[in-house]
Amino acid sequence: MPKYQAPLKDMKFLLYDVLEIGAYSNLPRFADAPRDVIDAVLDGGATFASEVLQPINAIGDKQGCKRNPDGSVTTPKGFREAYQRMSDDGWMAISADPQFGGQGLPRVVAFPFLEMCSSANMAFSMYPGLTRGAAEAIQHGGSEGQKKTYLPNMVSGKWSGTMNLTEPQCGTDLGLIRTKAVPQPDGSYKITGQKIWISGGEQDLAENIIQLVLARIEGGPEGIKGISLFIVPKFLVNADGSLGARNAFQCGGLEEKMGIHGNATCVMNYEGATGYLVGEAHKGMRTMFVMMNEARLGVGLQGLSQAEVAFQNAADFARERLQGRSITGAKSPDKPADPIIVHPDVRRMLMDMKAFIEGGRAFAYWTALQGDLEVVSPDPHVREKAEDRMALLTPVIKAFLTDRGFKSASEALQLHGGTGYTREQGVEQFVRDARIALIYEGTNGIQALDLVGRKLAANGGRAVFSFFSDLEDFVSSNDENEKLKPYVDGVTTATAQLKDGTMWLMQNGMSNFDNAGASSHDYLQLFGLTALALMWAKMAKAALERQGNGDRFYDDKLATARYYFERVLPDATSHLAKVKAGAAPVMALSADAF
Amino acid sequence: MPKYQAPLKDMKFLLYDVLEIGAYSNLPRFADAPRDVIDAVLDGGATFASEVLQPINAIGDKQGCKRNPDGSVTTPKGFREAYQRMSDDGWMAISADPQFGGQGLPRVVAFPFLEMCSSANMAFSMYPGLTRGAAEAIQHGGSEGQKKTYLPNMVSGKWSGTMNLTEPQCGTDLGLIRTKAVPQPDGSYKITGQKIWISGGEQDLAENIIQLVLARIEGGPEGIKGISLFIVPKFLVNADGSLGARNAFQCGGLEEKMGIHGNATCVMNYEGATGYLVGEAHKGMRTMFVMMNEARLGVGLQGLSQAEVAFQNAADFARERLQGRSITGAKSPDKPADPIIVHPDVRRMLMDMKAFIEGGRAFAYWTALQGDLEVVSPDPHVREKAEDRMALLTPVIKAFLTDRGFKSASEALQLHGGTGYTREQGVEQFVRDARIALIYEGTNGIQALDLVGRKLAANGGRAVFSFFSDLEDFVSSNDENEKLKPYVDGVTTATAQLKDGTMWLMQNGMSNFDNAGASSHDYLQLFGLTALALMWAKMAKAALERQGNGDRFYDDKLATARYYFERVLPDATSHLAKVKAGAAPVMALSADAF
Repeated sequence: MPKYQAPLKDMKFLLYDVLEIGAYSNLPRFADAPRDVIDAVLDGGATFASEVLQPINAIGDKQGCKRNPDGSVTTPKGFREAYQRMSDDGWMAISADPQFGGQGLPRVVAFPFLEMCSSANMAFSMYPGLTRGAAEAIQHGGSEGQKKTYLPNMVSGKWSGTMNLTEPQCGTDLGLIRTKAVPQPDGSYKITGQKIWISGGEQDLAENIIQLVLARIEGGPEGIKGISLFIVPKFLVNADGSLGARNAFQCGGLEEKMGIHGNATCVMNYEGATGYLVGEAHKGMRTMFVMMNEARLGVGLQGLSQAEVAFQNAADFARERLQGRSITGAKSPDKPADPIIVHPDVRRMLMDMKAFIEGGRAFAYWTALQGDLEVVSPDPHVREKAEDRMALLTPVIKAFLTDRGFKSASEALQLHGGTGYTREQGVEQFVRDARIALIYEGTNGIQALDLVGRKLAANGGRAVFSFFSDLEDFVSSNDENEKLKPYVDGVTTATAQLKDGTMWLMQNGMSNFDNAGASSHDYLQLFGLTALALMWAKMAKAALERQGNGDRFYDDKLATARYYFERVLPDATSHLAKVKAGAAPVMALSADAF
Repeated sequence: MPKYQAPLKDMKFLLYDVLEIGAYSNLPRFADAPRDVIDAVLDGGATFASEVLQPINAIGDKQGCKRNPDGSVTTPKGFREAYQRMSDDGWMAISADPQFGGQGLPRVVAFPFLEMCSSANMAFSMYPGLTRGAAEAIQHGGSEGQKKTYLPNMVSGKWSGTMNLTEPQCGTDLGLIRTKAVPQPDGSYKITGQKIWISGGEQDLAENIIQLVLARIEGGPEGIKGISLFIVPKFLVNADGSLGARNAFQCGGLEEKMGIHGNATCVMNYEGATGYLVGEAHKGMRTMFVMMNEARLGVGLQGLSQAEVAFQNAADFARERLQGRSITGAKSPDKPADPIIVHPDVRRMLMDMKAFIEGGRAFAYWTALQGDLEVVSPDPHVREKAEDRMALLTPVIKAFLTDRGFKSASEALQLHGGTGYTREQGVEQFVRDARIALIYEGTNGIQALDLVGRKLAANGGRAVFSFFSDLEDFVSSNDENEKLKPYVDGVTTATAQLKDGTMWLMQNGMSNFDNAGASSHDYLQLFGLTALALMWAKMAKAALERQGNGDRFYDDKLATARYYFERVLPDATSHLAKVKAGAAPVMALSADAF
């Protein structure tokens, strides 16, 4: 059976020593989160994740969810109790707005907790995760009455939330949505249509399920400009807040999937269900994008989280499994064989995972901090810069962390040899669960297009030039630090490559959009590698300042940074070459030649 | 439901136009295989694969194998009939020795057939595949009596074969084997011990199962030098060839796995079972290596085969799924959206798969041809060169084709978006099935060590220098061909990088073995990329000679070759950089730092 222990030391190193969040203690949210509070949240969260969520992860995979003949859905054994406990103990929305019952912690503090929950049980964590996203959409786009009616119970977890976007004929292209909304005399709408792949669309965890549904108001504009967003609760809510009539929709079936079996993926049939418009008619995508961007960061964390738990189990296996002898002479001569961790190729796999995970974690948390500063900073320049970073980096977080997260989970399986392929051992579940993260909330290909097609061009390239400044500022403010030189040099190299790729795209992507499309995947990878280079250099700096106190953690951090620059970052060269190869070789064949 | 159609045109292009096997018609095996015979084998094989094996592939995945209370194993519905049909129609051992009932076709002709069967149904194909391997081991190492007793029925498929290596405490490190063999007065042995992960160890397909079992004869040397190989038939064979008593072993359980559910992965308990020594005592590894090397090429083909079938389904999906508009303007304005194949990033995925698959196929078939020449050529120099190539390239075929094959299958899933993650669609099965190929028959890490630790050094580097000659001879004999120049230049670049990496290894791997171990994975990848560069240049040459006859196949081949050199081969640069980074960053941490 797999194990999971939250990497608390690394998480705290990032928050306190690298991101130095103590420096923001004069700002809202941060002011109420002194170090002892954050420590308590992280320590308690770690216990909750490993003691409550992790033990039901394999059960959830094995049992899956069941749809009963009456359309209700039964989640795996233990999920109800865990959900209840999560709600009772106040873990549902630790960063939600206090006016609706949240604890109001900074997002950067919530991220480690979310990572832990996802490592411990990704399928389970999607239920509260989507609830959080739906609540934020309502908070962002809903009326005061809607907020009052729905948010307190969603924040507490008493009610859950979902997002209903996909239909059989439309996934990525939401302009093709056919679900229909017909205005009623009382101001509500009747919603009719079929939605598919709705995570948590039906379940037995929460008293009420608040569906956020994209639909087309009859007579509205065609395409994406005619899409509106509706609140469609499973049980209508009476004026006194109590639950009223069951709304007219049903779960028509569950999808059998490669993984995340513990999460109910529902076909939802709306049959004249009562819905309430959120925000303006035909402007539903605006609010939905709030939810999606939030969710994209969460999906990036999922990729990282599966890499982490798979890595932990691989490291244990590598220390315990005796097989073969070290090529430089027996290391455990008293045993029948050496533990396989002595073999350089096993080390390579572990180091690849470790360098990705710790760098990716820094990147995710750093971006989460931008999400806080975007809201709480009193300085408009800081807010703008933070907002730019968030917008620019969200697709990178989503795609890069899930691509490499899946790869890491698969590498962890590989390290286990045949054992890893057995279901009993459990690491293969992480690979199957991680696989969805490359797809949902916009496939990684869509993230790459978002990056090159929207985010680079926005405001005349302001965000990307600002990110170049982040890189160059780090280099210039540290170029006299001799000990930091190898890491600073790595950032310099990475920056030059990213700039080269960016310039190529700006020169060639506008004249021929296919160049942008053909290069988008490799450009995003190049971007992610560069972002992690900056993160590793920042971590190296923090580690150098603390090294020598007898704690090996900092030496190991520096050694892993070195590994990143010498054995991971070289990938950037290949990605840059592919970016600059352009569209011609990609588009040469006719569609029927495949 | 997924589809599969054998890529006959590409297969024939390789055999006739690229490998030009017509030139060997004066050699044994080839002499009996004129083009019309080969065409009939391939065309008939394609029909067999897609009509008999492919329809039961998803069923096999869903049902899996069942162990009954009496220890017998029931394979999925349809497997028995398909196996019978395969045997009846003579498909079991088309390249086996005619003296035992085989058809004696060259191995290079059998390879396309094996690829087809594996694409159509990988889990099923393992039953005949292991039977073939076991038969070859007996043919190579067994006595005349053993050959006469076992081979005809194994070649026909009436009996099946397996390999029993792994035990709970030993997988890679076979020196740790504990299964015991006690000599009996009649010359036989009593075999006692537990073997795990035995593919097809028990099943209901064949009348008898011939287990090849590695065990330690009591009192023999310790470690790998004390391992002997035994034939342990499920039913003892009477002097007249009829089946006698049931032997004393049982299937103690089936492994639940990530994939290949249609293949029974058995725990085998030997309880004083009667076994017959194959070859010399304590020299079992020699013969087992014959079987393993054979099997390794087959596993490489499995990687390729899953990429191919996943690719075909992805290409169909990309042509059919309507979603979004081309970024260069609508391509199907009469439809609600364009097919997703218009999008450059979708093309990138398809081209990545296509360039890998067609290059990998050429590489596999070219290596298979070496396996023929090694045996049938009258010229000792040709035989030696062919043997060198086989030995050198077997680990590359195994690891490179399974690494990239898995990656391609996963990319095909990605192209399907959410649909790809559903079990109903079926592409996710290819990903799960393909995953095992990176592990069994020696993990890919072991293949890489075999390449750098054994194959490079053997005979003073003769094989690798001979491979450099292959590369350089191609360049020098084609350097005046203007049209071929881009491809020849690509080979030149690749050769220089491979030589650079090889020289680095020769200089640094001997002085510090950890350098060899730490670089082995990336060196193998570099090797595979270079081998595919040679293959693509050879294919480009053959295509150029045939281009312009109105058949677009050759134009497409040239365009795909261009894609390979411009958008795949750049990976070599990263791998070379990682090779030369050496062991220091890999080995820096202590074991407890992970």
